[in-house]
Amino acid sequence: MTLRTGPLKVRAQIFAGDEIAMGPGKADLLEAIEREGSISAAGRSLGMSYRRSWELVDTMNRCWAERLVETVPGGGRDRGAHVSEMGREVLALYRELERQLLGSAAGQDFTRLKGLLRDPPAPRNY
Amino acid sequence: MTLRTGPLKVRAQIFAGDEIAMGPGKADLLEAIEREGSISAAGRSLGMSYRRSWELVDTMNRCWAERLVETVPGGGRDRGAHVSEMGREVLALYRELERQLLGSAAGQDFTRLKGLLRDPPAPRNY
Repeated sequence: MTLRTGPLKVRAQIFAGDEIAMGPGKADLLEAIEREGSISAAGRSLGMSYRRSWELVDTMNRCWAERLVETVPGGGRDRGAHVSEMGREVLALYRELERQLLGSAAGQDFTRLKGLLRDPPAPRNY
Repeated sequence: MTLRTGPLKVRAQIFAGDEIAMGPGKADLLEAIEREGSISAAGRSLGMSYRRSWELVDTMNRCWAERLVETVPGGGRDRGAHVSEMGREVLALYRELERQLLGSAAGQDFTRLKGLLRDPPAPRNY
């Protein structure tokens, strides 16, 4: 999901220590896991490598009070996975936080910024 | 500048078409140019290559109604540069937008999210 309101894009990241516990990519992956029923299929649907999607899941599972993604043992790469109850709660809270952030951007300063934009940009000279 | 309130980090990007007209890296670069007086010195102070800092300046200069960075002709890589009047205005508006976004994050949902975080994260098992 891309959070854009006109020319403004907002990204929110939640840190646990130095690790990103939740962000746009991880939230998208959670939604894809819920939809696809496996980590590898979810990653594929987002154009993400198996290794990358597995790393994101591992990070999420270590950064919250409980695991956000549960896997079904056995079955190799395509074994099933689903988003836990806490995973659904964290995802919903994160999406709500994103919506709040974007809603707060409808202020005066942004209007002025938009007025200064050149859209489309001038072409490159090289 | 890193916009963090506790575990939350917010990034705002302003798009002109498909190009990022302003974002955290470009705003930091503008501030560094104002401080250092040249694009190359500004890039160095941020650990950014000359090529990268020049590309960011070129993008900014094409994405707004007027150039945000003016360079003094001649003198090679270390020729002088300064932030234009419009550059200072865009920078100030962008920083204010960032502050507004971060301020809006002090809501209830974020409090609940924080309560679910495991900080520090559990160690990796591999």
